Amino acid sequence: MKLAVYPGSFDPLTLGHLDVVRRAAAVFDHLVLGVLVNPHKNGPLLPTDERLAAIREAVDAELPGLAGRIEVAAFEGLTVDFCRAHGATALVRGLRAVSDFEAELQMAHMNRALAPEVDTVFFPTAVEYAYLSSTLVKEIARFGGDVRPFVPPAVAARLGRRDPEAPRL
Amino acid sequence: MKLAVYPGSFDPLTLGHLDVVRRAAAVFDHLVLGVLVNPHKNGPLLPTDERLAAIREAVDAELPGLAGRIEVAAFEGLTVDFCRAHGATALVRGLRAVSDFEAELQMAHMNRALAPEVDTVFFPTAVEYAYLSSTLVKEIARFGGDVRPFVPPAVAARLGRRDPEAPRL
Amino acid sequence: MKLAVYPGSFDPLTLGHLDVVRRAAAVFDHLVLGVLVNPHKNGPLLPTDERLAAIREAVDAELPGLAGRIEVAAFEGLTVDFCRAHGATALVRGLRAVSDFEAELQMAHMNRALAPEVDTVFFPTAVEYAYLSSTLVKEIARFGGDVRPFVPPAVAARLGRRDPEAPRL
Amino acid sequence: MKLAVYPGSFDPLTLGHLDVVRRAAAVFDHLVLGVLVNPHKNGPLLPTDERLAAIREAVDAELPGLAGRIEVAAFEGLTVDFCRAHGATALVRGLRAVSDFEAELQMAHMNRALAPEVDTVFFPTAVEYAYLSSTLVKEIARFGGDVRPFVPPAVAARLGRRDPEAPRL
Amino acid sequence: MKLAVYPGSFDPLTLGHLDVVRRAAAVFDHLVLGVLVNPHKNGPLLPTDERLAAIREAVDAELPGLAGRIEVAAFEGLTVDFCRAHGATALVRGLRAVSDFEAELQMAHMNRALAPEVDTVFFPTAVEYAYLSSTLVKEIARFGGDVRPFVPPAVAARLGRRDPEAPRL
Amino acid sequence: MKLAVYPGSFDPLTLGHLDVVRRAAAVFDHLVLGVLVNPHKNGPLLPTDERLAAIREAVDAELPGLAGRIEVAAFEGLTVDFCRAHGATALVRGLRAVSDFEAELQMAHMNRALAPEVDTVFFPTAVEYAYLSSTLVKEIARFGGDVRPFVPPAVAARLGRRDPEAPRL
Repeated sequence: MKLAVYPGSFDPLTLGHLDVVRRAAAVFDHLVLGVLVNPHKNGPLLPTDERLAAIREAVDAELPGLAGRIEVAAFEGLTVDFCRAHGATALVRGLRAVSDFEAELQMAHMNRALAPEVDTVFFPTAVEYAYLSSTLVKEIARFGGDVRPFVPPAVAARLGRRDPEAPRL
Repeated sequence: MKLAVYPGSFDPLTLGHLDVVRRAAAVFDHLVLGVLVNPHKNGPLLPTDERLAAIREAVDAELPGLAGRIEVAAFEGLTVDFCRAHGATALVRGLRAVSDFEAELQMAHMNRALAPEVDTVFFPTAVEYAYLSSTLVKEIARFGGDVRPFVPPAVAARLGRRDPEAPRL
Repeated sequence: MKLAVYPGSFDPLTLGHLDVVRRAAAVFDHLVLGVLVNPHKNGPLLPTDERLAAIREAVDAELPGLAGRIEVAAFEGLTVDFCRAHGATALVRGLRAVSDFEAELQMAHMNRALAPEVDTVFFPTAVEYAYLSSTLVKEIARFGGDVRPFVPPAVAARLGRRDPEAPRL
Repeated sequence: MKLAVYPGSFDPLTLGHLDVVRRAAAVFDHLVLGVLVNPHKNGPLLPTDERLAAIREAVDAELPGLAGRIEVAAFEGLTVDFCRAHGATALVRGLRAVSDFEAELQMAHMNRALAPEVDTVFFPTAVEYAYLSSTLVKEIARFGGDVRPFVPPAVAARLGRRDPEAPRL
Repeated sequence: MKLAVYPGSFDPLTLGHLDVVRRAAAVFDHLVLGVLVNPHKNGPLLPTDERLAAIREAVDAELPGLAGRIEVAAFEGLTVDFCRAHGATALVRGLRAVSDFEAELQMAHMNRALAPEVDTVFFPTAVEYAYLSSTLVKEIARFGGDVRPFVPPAVAARLGRRDPEAPRL
Repeated sequence: MKLAVYPGSFDPLTLGHLDVVRRAAAVFDHLVLGVLVNPHKNGPLLPTDERLAAIREAVDAELPGLAGRIEVAAFEGLTVDFCRAHGATALVRGLRAVSDFEAELQMAHMNRALAPEVDTVFFPTAVEYAYLSSTLVKEIARFGGDVRPFVPPAVAARLGRRDPEAPRL
């Protein structure tokens, strides 16, 4: 069985992420979405438990035929340790643009030095999501803009409920 | 009448920004410089009111023939909301280099999704200002370096007055 | 009156080019599509007269409201000379990606040195056309692939008529 | 069964290509190396039959455990047609650097528009082969340089036999 | 005598930095490693005195033949001021990838405007260290990963001693 | 004595090349400009002997204080062989922009694999020449444009004499 990990902050999960999930699930037998929890970083838009719930719901609703082979789990620490814990042989990443690519390549090579048995595989983001960035979606959400063109409904619902009085970026 | 918004932090306004202002004002009938105010971001070099005054002064002094068609205004929140409030049909951005371009393209596409009626137009920065960065100017100013080759006199005068005892970067 | 030139080989004109035409025509009062003729370069897909006719037809059919302010003309030699001959104050170019951007910036700076009175203005290609390349369309056409998702009908019609026995790339 | 095509000119096959083959064969059940034949392009270093033989030999010698699941075949025309003819659901490409990435992304998006059922998957080239280019290897071979650090022995043997009197680049 | 400064945070010094040191010391008669101290930036991995000691030790151990011509010194403020204080005519920087290059070019041009007598010279990082990043090494160290493939022994020894209970990134 | 080779086609030598020559000559004791002769490539703007004469004249006229330490020589074949023949320990290249950088890095790594004793050193082109390209200068010359802002007088004089009836690009 070919198992892959798709790690990320997914804060929030965008339609671009979901497109990568769908395509990676077509290549691998089992896919684990690893949701990175960083206890020392301030200001995730959604707390970990809400992020996990939103991703699970979005996967079940948008990718019903694949959901049974997709797992969602939080993790702390190094990505390669998470891959090993799950017995993954591949690490999946989406690629949008050049600035992505440079940083992604660097991580891929560092991870390969740390864990040669886990190979990084890149999926180019579909062109209609090529401009989507969690950081920009977060900013739009914080200023009360409409995030529905950018994220699945399960995520949009949770972002809409955010307290408009909470401190902004 | 064709109205465009040129948004930015302009902290501080550089000679490169001024070059973009001059060229955008040649294409559009009216240009609004939107000075982004971010209440949650620490450490602007110049407080908002001083930034606005410096930009206004610089535009009047350096671009006297165009100044009547150039407006300077502060804004908070999303750029597209500011564009709509002013009835702008175009959003102007300068382009210096590749790293700029990637981030700019991403913002342009996100903004287009949010407000299809506002089109982003890019002006390549004149080659003599292609290396200018507000961030680097800010650092030079904080360490007491000479910023006069990089910013208009109205800005340099204000930066020179900064308290050398104030906390640095 | 603000007149701009949009130069290119347009061999063939793609939906991405047409998107740039539409957006440039919203900013400028008059737009001249300058179709570059290179007598020493082998193998244009469409001969000059067919290219001009296809572009004119495509503009009339796809951008009916703007067509009156859009002119299509062939040229040889330097782009800046063509701009001067038409009294243009702006030179329009679409921007798709990083490799584009580098080459475009270089041309913009060279052109500025040759003709400071003509300013280059960039329009980012709409995200759905961001991957479109005349070179790839040409290759698809030569191998008998379907080019209709990439070019306007007036162009597709002409490409379909190409002699399948003619020498390929 | 998951079948992927890895298309390329492989003129000549480098150690970098071989690394991508090894890694793609770990992810997919069957891998077809599609060797592009371009009858109108001058000057391949090795004629098609020699290229195919060299690749087959190199795969058998360097990847003995995987060779049974790797096929080598020549093709003309569009890559997506070759993928369809083989029933491939994935198209494999190696990624070395930024200039690669831009062009690869463009092809991936065009191919997706032509054949949505074939998904492009990228493998980052191992860091020790990140600088390898068939074009540079070809140039080195033509000037009598030592190509053995760059290509598998089966390829080096054939390049060494090239007629030193044959016309160069 | 040709004296060059190689400035950086070196937090921590990697094998890639050491490779640049070795190559710059072959070109220049004397090389000063300028270790940037930033009192307002939180969270260097190693305090300044430990960083200086680790670098000195690493240079003595790994580059014994060159160590006599290499100086290690801390500095605050602008790099060009540090260069002038040492009478340097060249400023050395390593180059890994495109994102590096853009930022480096910007700094080189700003520094040239501030101090035309100090010329920036770039050394491409050896391909085996091309993916090394202090930031990623720092993250690996903080999560208890093995940093020995990335840094010289003198640095690894100090990172290993870090208190695992100390607050993480 | 530190000897470096600066190889290139220099067809034609631009002010940007001359800037790199000046800066490399400040770092190295002796600099050999290696002018690449490619007998199989069509259409150099200036034949080899004229190119060599123009470069020698330009160096003598523009860099009188350095000319005694600068040699101009033609070469065929691999750059590393030319470096070895001259006993060079360094190979100098100018860097203008990102697309340059990728290709340059690739060549630097290939050359290092072929000749580890010759190290590539990059000089960033001065910002005022950052847009200069021999290819664009060549095109301007062929269409009768004014090349004097881009090349030294010794080169401009020779380009001006070109036969306007000769076949163009």
